[in-house]
Amino acid sequence: MKPEVLLSRIRVVLCRPSHPGNIGAAARAMKTMGLTDLRLVTPKQFPDPEADTRATGAVDLLQRAKITATLAEALHGCVFAVAMSARRRDLGPAVGSPRQTMARLLEAAASGEVALVFGNETVGLANEEVLQCQAAVTIPTDPGFSSLNLGAAVQVLCYECRMAAFDGAAPLPEQKATPFAALPATHDEIEGLYGHLESVMTETGFYNPQQPGRLLPKLRRLFGRVGLEKDEVNILRGILAATRQPTGHGRKD
Amino acid sequence: MKPEVLLSRIRVVLCRPSHPGNIGAAARAMKTMGLTDLRLVTPKQFPDPEADTRATGAVDLLQRAKITATLAEALHGCVFAVAMSARRRDLGPAVGSPRQTMARLLEAAASGEVALVFGNETVGLANEEVLQCQAAVTIPTDPGFSSLNLGAAVQVLCYECRMAAFDGAAPLPEQKATPFAALPATHDEIEGLYGHLESVMTETGFYNPQQPGRLLPKLRRLFGRVGLEKDEVNILRGILAATRQPTGHGRKD
Repeated sequence: MKPEVLLSRIRVVLCRPSHPGNIGAAARAMKTMGLTDLRLVTPKQFPDPEADTRATGAVDLLQRAKITATLAEALHGCVFAVAMSARRRDLGPAVGSPRQTMARLLEAAASGEVALVFGNETVGLANEEVLQCQAAVTIPTDPGFSSLNLGAAVQVLCYECRMAAFDGAAPLPEQKATPFAALPATHDEIEGLYGHLESVMTETGFYNPQQPGRLLPKLRRLFGRVGLEKDEVNILRGILAATRQPTGHGRKD
Repeated sequence: MKPEVLLSRIRVVLCRPSHPGNIGAAARAMKTMGLTDLRLVTPKQFPDPEADTRATGAVDLLQRAKITATLAEALHGCVFAVAMSARRRDLGPAVGSPRQTMARLLEAAASGEVALVFGNETVGLANEEVLQCQAAVTIPTDPGFSSLNLGAAVQVLCYECRMAAFDGAAPLPEQKATPFAALPATHDEIEGLYGHLESVMTETGFYNPQQPGRLLPKLRRLFGRVGLEKDEVNILRGILAATRQPTGHGRKD
């Protein structure tokens, strides 16, 4: 199944959100990662201009958001649901990491609609709500400050959904060919550079082949690491060649 | 080196941020992931009450934030810097994924201070700024909507920093023992349950050992998947036993 289809099967359910700004931020976070199905369980204030402002280009998700009176309605028809939980519960599913748990969510999405359920900003999810989900997830935070913003939590989990949908290899923006596109230098071109460098250093007396020391290996280590391009080898050799010309005949730019 | 120490060596540099709210959100995002060193290059409006509001418990990071006139000053003393870039550049370091690139950043943090550099909300980083960094990172987004909020981008990358610092296994909130702590059922306890189930089903005529079909394997598949606990096996066997008592002698709750 295509990653885009899997992502479209994920409902993001916000239970009793207090701040409309967070609803907007959640919509924007979802849309950047290819999720589109937002559900709101008794939001305190919605629709609201603050939600629209924070959503920026994701206002369409707010307009299509389904509002329900209970979590059960929001989960109707789902084959798998994950509760976001910042704290340990006595009852309820064991809490997993975002990476593992979103991988399970995407796997389940292959067989139907799934959901990612978030609680209220202050009190989180009620135990009865967590018990309606088959898995729970926590975002690892600093033990001294675990106060993740709701929109930020939605962003992190939607990001992991996208990563999971693409098997950890979500495509980066297309690297179109440009006049600057890098053509890597070949082995022999790079060896040519080393030879050129060595002869110039020898001629100038900077390098003494009788007492080689570690100079050449160090230069190889430096240029080896950088991943030289064709063009760069040409520039470097141009610089070297110019040092051997009678003054005034070097490159003039 | 301890993960906490590595995380403390990461500077988050915001270049020319327009909205004080985003500075606050960035501070909060950083602190949840254990980062503390915020640098601001010519912020449009700072300090600002909106920044404090969005930072909530991370106002201390705002108070300690260093403001500089140039990116070069903010990077002074750094051994490695990563530019956040939403788009392809003709020049500048190749753009990597968050997971790989944050792993490189944390590796470099072992030898000194490092930086994560973000541009302005609308125009991003200038080419001259990207060229001061040794690597670039892009957060993979939906090709149709790549408009990540600045605070959300800081959250995702700081999250990946924390994951990288803990080698992908950042500790989840402590799972303290409770009266409900699950003791897993042992193999023989589970086999005892299957035997009990089979005999009850046979006695009731629901199961015919002469025509077994796939009933038993299906039950094994169901209970095998769920990861039974001791207590649950006891409850199930109690239910089964009760069905065989003369009416009125079963469990009464």
